[in-house]
Amino acid sequence: MRLMVARDGQGTALYFVEGEEAYRLTGQAGFNATDLSGAICAPVEKINQIVTAAKQAAPQPVESLIPALPFNQFGKILCLGLNYVDHVKEGGYEIPTYPAMFIRFPASMIPAGAPMIKPDCSDRLDYEVELMIVIGKGGRHISEEDALSHVFGYTVFNDGSVRDYQRKTHQWTPGKNFDATGAVGPVVVTADKLPPGAAGLNIVSRLNGNVMQSANTADMMWSVAKTIATVSEFTTLEPGDLIATGTPPGVGHARTPPVFLVPGDTVEVEIENICTCVNPIVSEGDAAGKEAAA
Amino acid sequence: MRLMVARDGQGTALYFVEGEEAYRLTGQAGFNATDLSGAICAPVEKINQIVTAAKQAAPQPVESLIPALPFNQFGKILCLGLNYVDHVKEGGYEIPTYPAMFIRFPASMIPAGAPMIKPDCSDRLDYEVELMIVIGKGGRHISEEDALSHVFGYTVFNDGSVRDYQRKTHQWTPGKNFDATGAVGPVVVTADKLPPGAAGLNIVSRLNGNVMQSANTADMMWSVAKTIATVSEFTTLEPGDLIATGTPPGVGHARTPPVFLVPGDTVEVEIENICTCVNPIVSEGDAAGKEAAA
Repeated sequence: MRLMVARDGQGTALYFVEGEEAYRLTGQAGFNATDLSGAICAPVEKINQIVTAAKQAAPQPVESLIPALPFNQFGKILCLGLNYVDHVKEGGYEIPTYPAMFIRFPASMIPAGAPMIKPDCSDRLDYEVELMIVIGKGGRHISEEDALSHVFGYTVFNDGSVRDYQRKTHQWTPGKNFDATGAVGPVVVTADKLPPGAAGLNIVSRLNGNVMQSANTADMMWSVAKTIATVSEFTTLEPGDLIATGTPPGVGHARTPPVFLVPGDTVEVEIENICTCVNPIVSEGDAAGKEAAA
Repeated sequence: MRLMVARDGQGTALYFVEGEEAYRLTGQAGFNATDLSGAICAPVEKINQIVTAAKQAAPQPVESLIPALPFNQFGKILCLGLNYVDHVKEGGYEIPTYPAMFIRFPASMIPAGAPMIKPDCSDRLDYEVELMIVIGKGGRHISEEDALSHVFGYTVFNDGSVRDYQRKTHQWTPGKNFDATGAVGPVVVTADKLPPGAAGLNIVSRLNGNVMQSANTADMMWSVAKTIATVSEFTTLEPGDLIATGTPPGVGHARTPPVFLVPGDTVEVEIENICTCVNPIVSEGDAAGKEAAA
């Protein structure tokens, strides 16, 4: 099942997506949730009933919808830092025996289509395409064998990183938490529609149409199952928690010469059979001006 | 003003604390908030009215209350890692020119009095006393000069750290995010009752009554004002956000021989004129057993 949270004339709603058409689930058959949490918490049979009811109405073209964040209220947003061996090497790090992890605040997140903000204080905003896990069933001490049963689905993430702030100290937090730099969505695909652990999918980023990263999710050192087992060793996962699984080689700061995002650029991150997340780069000053004028 | 969120027979409520007595604010004069957010968002005059109304009723002894977390729903929990120069040296780090920062999930937080859980997978749970800022007024790009006007108040934090997981990679996230390892409270003191920036206060931790850390908040390299300015350069602060300001020297893992917390220990962290946060150390297995039995 392909799901999307989007804004329409009546507010934010959850949609079922089929090809280029979208059916509004919010408001159908007693389903009042306006974000993905409603689908994660409801039994599968109930969601199927709602989809059947929704399909009685005329669909809307997907392209007419404005993607919104998947959750009105985010749970955890945990990110793996170095999970593709060639990206570890391009960053000058040693091959790790445990995944490097950092956390993003919800304030850093934007939906597909929204402006990704290049802060005024830095000229080193960079892209990173990543597979993002959406947890469906919570738990602690989840075994690798059982881990995939805890996945609701997958989406695409652009882990926009302000490189000079990421490396001001050994802790990456500031560079990974600038307002409006992490783009997610627009579609969440349920796990049953993808290979186990979403392995073997092409993962690509493009800057103004040029391919910058191109790899396969099979190249991840920590698979989805191993990642969930590792994370749940220290924290109790909850439905709706998000785990980003790291980026493959080809990021801008590791290129010769380096490539950083500038206002006017368009970045696309795509994973095969999931979705493509496209965001324009806008300067902080321009974004603030537009907000004030709105 | 001294405020405390606590459990009583009717649920969780916000209390005004005076000496050893506490007055229930929740339910008074139309004040329905059950946590600190209600006090942060209300105008000062309104809160003063509610306190006046609350003091018409008989107080309860503070010691009869069970402290609860200050927020039902946490905002950001951002922590500075190395902010006292002598603690930087004991950890083997170089003196930084920018603060090391990490993020904690709400799931890692516990109130004063609650068991701090030593995970089964590690024997290296450590204490860290810290001054914690409670943001009152949000903002981005807050200047150092204006920063203290954004502070609602201060509380005490024990940044319980699982040292081997903190150093599994260069990113500290796992070691700082074990379930039920970060203790906060019980009292939040409004900024007007403390020196500007809560500077010049004695800050102490004790393990089973023995002083382990003893310093002064004046020793922080990044003052409260400078911290808020630095953080708000990358993220928009919101009312209720928490910023922990790092720990002074004397932590367990840097001692010779090292000292780690074991079940049965009691840790106290205290800041002069704010409060003392006392927590027993309980093994993960014992805690799980008690939860199952409850």
